[in-house]
Amino acid sequence: MYHAMTSLGFAQASTFSGPLRLDGAPKGASVLVLGAGIAGLVAAYELRQAGYHVTVLEYNGRAGGRSWSIRGGDRYTELGGAEQTCRFAKGEYVNPGPWRLPYHHHGMLDYARRFNVPLEPFIQVNYNAYLHGTNAFGGKPQRYRTVQADYNGHVAELLAKATGAGRLDGEISGEEKEQLLESLASFGGLDKDMLYGKNRIASERRGYDVPPGGGLMPRAQYSTPGNRGELLSSRLWESLAVGHEYEFQTSIFQPKHGMDQIALAVYGQVKQLVQFHAKVTAIDQDERGVTVTVEDARQPGQGIRKVKADWCVCTIPLSILSQVEVKAKPELLAAIAAVPYAAAFKAGLQFKRRFWEQDDGIFGGISYTDQPINRICYPASNFNAKGPAVVLGAYMFGPNAFEFSAMNTDERLREVVRQGGQLHAQYEKEFDNGVTVGWHRVPWINGCMGMWTEGARAQHYDNLCTIDNRLVLAGEHASFIGGWQEGAVLSAHDAITRLHAKAKATTTRSAA
Amino acid sequence: MYHAMTSLGFAQASTFSGPLRLDGAPKGASVLVLGAGIAGLVAAYELRQAGYHVTVLEYNGRAGGRSWSIRGGDRYTELGGAEQTCRFAKGEYVNPGPWRLPYHHHGMLDYARRFNVPLEPFIQVNYNAYLHGTNAFGGKPQRYRTVQADYNGHVAELLAKATGAGRLDGEISGEEKEQLLESLASFGGLDKDMLYGKNRIASERRGYDVPPGGGLMPRAQYSTPGNRGELLSSRLWESLAVGHEYEFQTSIFQPKHGMDQIALAVYGQVKQLVQFHAKVTAIDQDERGVTVTVEDARQPGQGIRKVKADWCVCTIPLSILSQVEVKAKPELLAAIAAVPYAAAFKAGLQFKRRFWEQDDGIFGGISYTDQPINRICYPASNFNAKGPAVVLGAYMFGPNAFEFSAMNTDERLREVVRQGGQLHAQYEKEFDNGVTVGWHRVPWINGCMGMWTEGARAQHYDNLCTIDNRLVLAGEHASFIGGWQEGAVLSAHDAITRLHAKAKATTTRSAA
Repeated sequence: MYHAMTSLGFAQASTFSGPLRLDGAPKGASVLVLGAGIAGLVAAYELRQAGYHVTVLEYNGRAGGRSWSIRGGDRYTELGGAEQTCRFAKGEYVNPGPWRLPYHHHGMLDYARRFNVPLEPFIQVNYNAYLHGTNAFGGKPQRYRTVQADYNGHVAELLAKATGAGRLDGEISGEEKEQLLESLASFGGLDKDMLYGKNRIASERRGYDVPPGGGLMPRAQYSTPGNRGELLSSRLWESLAVGHEYEFQTSIFQPKHGMDQIALAVYGQVKQLVQFHAKVTAIDQDERGVTVTVEDARQPGQGIRKVKADWCVCTIPLSILSQVEVKAKPELLAAIAAVPYAAAFKAGLQFKRRFWEQDDGIFGGISYTDQPINRICYPASNFNAKGPAVVLGAYMFGPNAFEFSAMNTDERLREVVRQGGQLHAQYEKEFDNGVTVGWHRVPWINGCMGMWTEGARAQHYDNLCTIDNRLVLAGEHASFIGGWQEGAVLSAHDAITRLHAKAKATTTRSAA
Repeated sequence: MYHAMTSLGFAQASTFSGPLRLDGAPKGASVLVLGAGIAGLVAAYELRQAGYHVTVLEYNGRAGGRSWSIRGGDRYTELGGAEQTCRFAKGEYVNPGPWRLPYHHHGMLDYARRFNVPLEPFIQVNYNAYLHGTNAFGGKPQRYRTVQADYNGHVAELLAKATGAGRLDGEISGEEKEQLLESLASFGGLDKDMLYGKNRIASERRGYDVPPGGGLMPRAQYSTPGNRGELLSSRLWESLAVGHEYEFQTSIFQPKHGMDQIALAVYGQVKQLVQFHAKVTAIDQDERGVTVTVEDARQPGQGIRKVKADWCVCTIPLSILSQVEVKAKPELLAAIAAVPYAAAFKAGLQFKRRFWEQDDGIFGGISYTDQPINRICYPASNFNAKGPAVVLGAYMFGPNAFEFSAMNTDERLREVVRQGGQLHAQYEKEFDNGVTVGWHRVPWINGCMGMWTEGARAQHYDNLCTIDNRLVLAGEHASFIGGWQEGAVLSAHDAITRLHAKAKATTTRSAA
């Protein structure tokens, strides 16, 4: 199959060139993998397949790292000691970390496929969801489809005017001009006079005041396009581009039953190699191997022990690794210290019923707002179901995330519900319970992902990824797909491919 | 709940105003429903709920009508006698009729909800699917995302030039102009000079030549935007608007396991009322009731009998009804004769494996071509699965549909596979088996849906829908949502609501 992929040029479209096929590990060679997130799990699985003796040390009492789904009964204690016990109904969950799988994240999709993790479409763009600006349209949420249709309509009409009036004759003329005008009518939903107006064409984009019905029901009534100036000043058009972006274009997926399902499927393959509650406090290495000092994560200063191996793949986030004593070249240490971690905050809210479906006709997708909660993401599974359901009620970065994380857990939920209520009047009444994660308060990472600047990349990235004697780093922070699980997969693939080559070369030299 | 809907203005957005609640049928009153498609099933269900004695007469040996899914083992004999036996694998199907449920088809969604039919997202727009023009780009299929990105980019750049050069000063100026320019950069993926070019911004829309990777993998390489003139003359932009259209916008659904699942769920509620293989040959009526003449659909001229009732809801397609002896006002008879039926052709192709996913990275969605097959629609379920799967390999209307239906069933498949092979080189090798439906050869409808012209609507539509003594018509043909199941639902709701009112009034008068 992968031969076919290559021959069709598919592999060229991805840095992922098919499943990794390492083999021939030096006899008896061992690798210590630090961290059982996506990168660590993938590294452990592939290295074990190649014949290495693998041990995985994980701080938490579960595998997956940020690939994490919180469900009813789960308890989570953040930095500062606040504990939350999730009270979601059976089957409900929130993904505080990654939550989407773009169609071109071939590495992740391949593990899902190999380990039979079922996928379902994630709905990124929903034309019936809301766009809300506190000062736009009197604070009244607008349907995505009306903003989308009106934007395209006004842009097409303006360009048609400029083109038709010959104002672009230096730019475009003759047959191309005719084709442009024809395409603008299609793109913008313009009438035969190249105008965007109150008619069937525009209503077939933005919706009707009274939609077409059956029998002798009241006849359809066209809707009236919004005013161009109000639309432009509303800035609601800012939310229209996201669905065109490479990471968010269709098709885009989520694993059924929670994002952690893929990580857990890989974990299922390497279960016996993973030691939980192992906090790494030091990484030492010399020409002969690596020695990692570990303590019991549940009892600081207790259960201290040393774990040795020939090689080490370290996937510990840089925000934590920079606090660990690492023996490595100054260049690598400088790189480890060079990457700050972003703040992010998510809230999962369980409501008593799917009022967004039942009352608002919104099935999946995302409503955006300029309030700090930033967005409301509706569940993309069990559409039409009758019980309670969980919405992602807030997803914010930066200062807003810090501000929300500074509140106590009850205050956070109250404020998230208050803001969401600006889009959905049903919020207060239907709210049941919720859980929040402020990522810079997550004990094992203190942030949500590495924030590379261009300058830091230029100075440190290669140093971060280069094998330092017997140690190599992997994770989303050691990739150009920051914050995505695919970055972790590709980083792990690349790191262990190089490590494997070095291990084989080293053994050959030793034997010679 | 439906009170909440109305108070939030949701009901105003739909001609569907909540589940029908008819009650108080006159004691002993009976209704004959002709046809067990969506309209007939819904009419039967709601009238029975209201207290009527209901009998449904259906020509076929199954319920659902055009809401039909063909599965392995199903046999289908078309006009002319050609029989096909479907050889799809277990669980695979093709919907030769309706195949999508828009989010605003509240009537259909409500029946799905009430009768627990699970829905899954249908993928209408897939940025990684192909757009193919025989004479465009040397016949090489283009990814939707590159055409989409390039179109937006070029349009935004052109309008920014016109605006920036002051050529639209009469139209737009000051703050609005600044906002327009800012929005165009976002919309088109323009750089700081308002140009669409080979850079990160454009590659984050149209994709990369080498995408970002992990570790020390080769660095990302930007892709080069296509030429504006070639794009415009390719006409591939014609396929970009469909996802903006009201009927095809997200969210859009399909029932899991086949479109017939909703019809069959309603049928499950009225099973005992339905008589199959009943071919209606005449509809007679007088002041006291309706008498329908029926024969055995499997044995022409045999099993002739008369069925009587107080009232009749006739959902027989006009293409068939116009061949039945109906006693009605001339206006209704003229309306029945006034609506020609569209020709359509669909082909379901089973392939040995999901090469479109595995080789091409296309998960669901639709590729379009200017060849007669018109499109290839990839399955929107069981993503990543390892076995065979069924693609909708052709969906065409008009002369093309006639031409394909004129071929024998083997020739049709050969030609569909040949044309699809222009988009997917794997077609020949991976093709397993297929089934085709040319709708004007379907014995019980001779077409796919009523084709109202504006003139015919003006002259005949109200006459078609008006109750004629004891007879009322329903179906997609008696709606403004032609060819959609929602039209059938709303038409049925409206028809039986009026019939019920008349029945009650009639009884009151009789009693008085």
